Amino acid sequence: PGNEKRPKETSALSSDRQPMATSRSPELRRDAIHSRWVIFSPARARRPSDFKSKSDPNPNSKNQTECAFCAGHEHECAPEIFRFPPDSTSDWKIRVIQNLYPALSRELDPPNSESVGGPVTIPGFGFHDVVIESPAHPIHLTDLSADQIAEVLLAYKKRIDQLRAFDSIKYVQASMSHSHSQIMALPVVPPTASARILSMKEDFAHTGKCGLCQVKQDDLLIDESSHFISIVPFAATFPFEIWIVPRDHSSHFHELDNDKALDLGGLLKLMLVKMSLQLNNPPYNFMIHTAPLQIDSTELPCTHWFIQIVPQLSGVGGFELGTGCYINPVFPEDAAKVLREVRIPN
Amino acid sequence: PGNEKRPKETSALSSDRQPMATSRSPELRRDAIHSRWVIFSPARARRPSDFKSKSDPNPNSKNQTECAFCAGHEHECAPEIFRFPPDSTSDWKIRVIQNLYPALSRELDPPNSESVGGPVTIPGFGFHDVVIESPAHPIHLTDLSADQIAEVLLAYKKRIDQLRAFDSIKYVQASMSHSHSQIMALPVVPPTASARILSMKEDFAHTGKCGLCQVKQDDLLIDESSHFISIVPFAATFPFEIWIVPRDHSSHFHELDNDKALDLGGLLKLMLVKMSLQLNNPPYNFMIHTAPLQIDSTELPCTHWFIQIVPQLSGVGGFELGTGCYINPVFPEDAAKVLREVRIPN
Repeated sequence: PGNEKRPKETSALSSDRQPMATSRSPELRRDAIHSRWVIFSPARARRPSDFKSKSDPNPNSKNQTECAFCAGHEHECAPEIFRFPPDSTSDWKIRVIQNLYPALSRELDPPNSESVGGPVTIPGFGFHDVVIESPAHPIHLTDLSADQIAEVLLAYKKRIDQLRAFDSIKYVQASMSHSHSQIMALPVVPPTASARILSMKEDFAHTGKCGLCQVKQDDLLIDESSHFISIVPFAATFPFEIWIVPRDHSSHFHELDNDKALDLGGLLKLMLVKMSLQLNNPPYNFMIHTAPLQIDSTELPCTHWFIQIVPQLSGVGGFELGTGCYINPVFPEDAAKVLREVRIPN
Repeated sequence: PGNEKRPKETSALSSDRQPMATSRSPELRRDAIHSRWVIFSPARARRPSDFKSKSDPNPNSKNQTECAFCAGHEHECAPEIFRFPPDSTSDWKIRVIQNLYPALSRELDPPNSESVGGPVTIPGFGFHDVVIESPAHPIHLTDLSADQIAEVLLAYKKRIDQLRAFDSIKYVQASMSHSHSQIMALPVVPPTASARILSMKEDFAHTGKCGLCQVKQDDLLIDESSHFISIVPFAATFPFEIWIVPRDHSSHFHELDNDKALDLGGLLKLMLVKMSLQLNNPPYNFMIHTAPLQIDSTELPCTHWFIQIVPQLSGVGGFELGTGCYINPVFPEDAAKVLREVRIPN
């Protein structure tokens, strides 16, 4: 991974696909008021009109029957990182490629160290990749079989294994919006992850146990498999939010083996099918929450990876934006009961 | 305020406007994984179909020429708290009323104390009020004059002064979505506020100065008035995010006096007009970020209230949801230059 190819991005060669010309590299900035990192990414701004109202591109509403991610359009994509099966002459089932408009740049020098206090800027070094789950578009994860979903999960794992070989990568976030996954490798531990680790450490200090090993409650349980449980969390932020949690303590998603991947593929598919049936096929996000890569070994007992699934049912208002406090109209035990009882037609 | 009237909510009297029948009171819950509070509010769930996809009600897209908030429809609203001018027989200019579907209930007993560690539930005690800025609907804040906006700001202040007399209210959040403001009084300090205070304290310990007293930078400045400056923050989370910051150190919004309210009304109007002209009249949120009500006097030097204005230009994806780390395609100094140079037609 250390010698991963660094494709030269020459605007002359691909000007039709290039974003708004800019001489700036991406940056990460942390302000002194919130101590939270923001990624400034000029490559994500393609046209000035992107900043007019109502330009919000919704990747879930695409109706094209073919796109640049479909088999036969590989030349329209940014460079491939790997494919599965690996034989490049055969038909592929899954491809992992670079993002054509990456928020972070693999071309920059990694930051040396994080300074403390005051406003801080570091270079926007990092990786922003795309996982194409199927050669056929449009496809939803629920259209795949459990073992095909397992292969997608193992593709995430393989890419994370490559990325964690970089010392300057501190965190890897894999997430999916409906039918399209991204893997972002960051040179900082992002706010949600650092807050979660801090909270789980405090809880561990208080109870002597990992909070996620203890998370199973009968009234919050939706389903379970050999190695995983699915629940509505006790203080779910969003209506019908679902977590899939490994039964056995495990800090990092990349500890997943083939056997557990197949088991997880089945439970993940079941949750997505139930959510889709109950909630009229909403757009959704799922996020893999794992521990920071270079976490201290003493912190391993109190970190536990899990998958969060959030159906997009309501917008975020000024109150939520301002306070970080969410209003959820559905009690978790009610949502769990509804999801537990969804009948799946044959 | 301690003897504020507690209207009995009898579903028999107003069943046509009542939410889905429920026997549950609102609750606040904190999980052990994130230590963040979520408000569970059954009153916000009106119909089961609210939880089907595409039910997202966008309060900014209303096209009605009259609504329950318009003059003449007062009987359709939840009880009034106060109006301006106060003479109830005259025409009103501003009304502060209860929310018909409050996320928190003023009827519940306030929580006694916060426990630490593990999953926690407390009663959903609190206040959820609405400020009607004008007797005519639809109205946008930019349609009001600077002194009319000042009157709205002074109505916020008056209501906050009432709410902070309750010992069990820890934080008051005033926010506006385009043309409609809400004031929420919470029995806990919400995550964004506690994280901000912690960060500002750390920064103060490091620099010996309040970060917001030092926030003015020529390249980030948009405009200034006698008592306030408007900037794009150094690490703006959203494209074209604007902050309005008091020049002189002040921890709480409710310290605003009439003179400063008039000055702020003018600068706030200017920012909203500039944003509207530059970005094609986007929906937006503005939030007043103030210090917790019972903040320790030693913390006053490192907390400083401000207004945050966020145009709604893009959605939030799985990466942002998962990490709390935002990708902003516009560098703050570029956004500040654009906003500084917007020409306002006469």
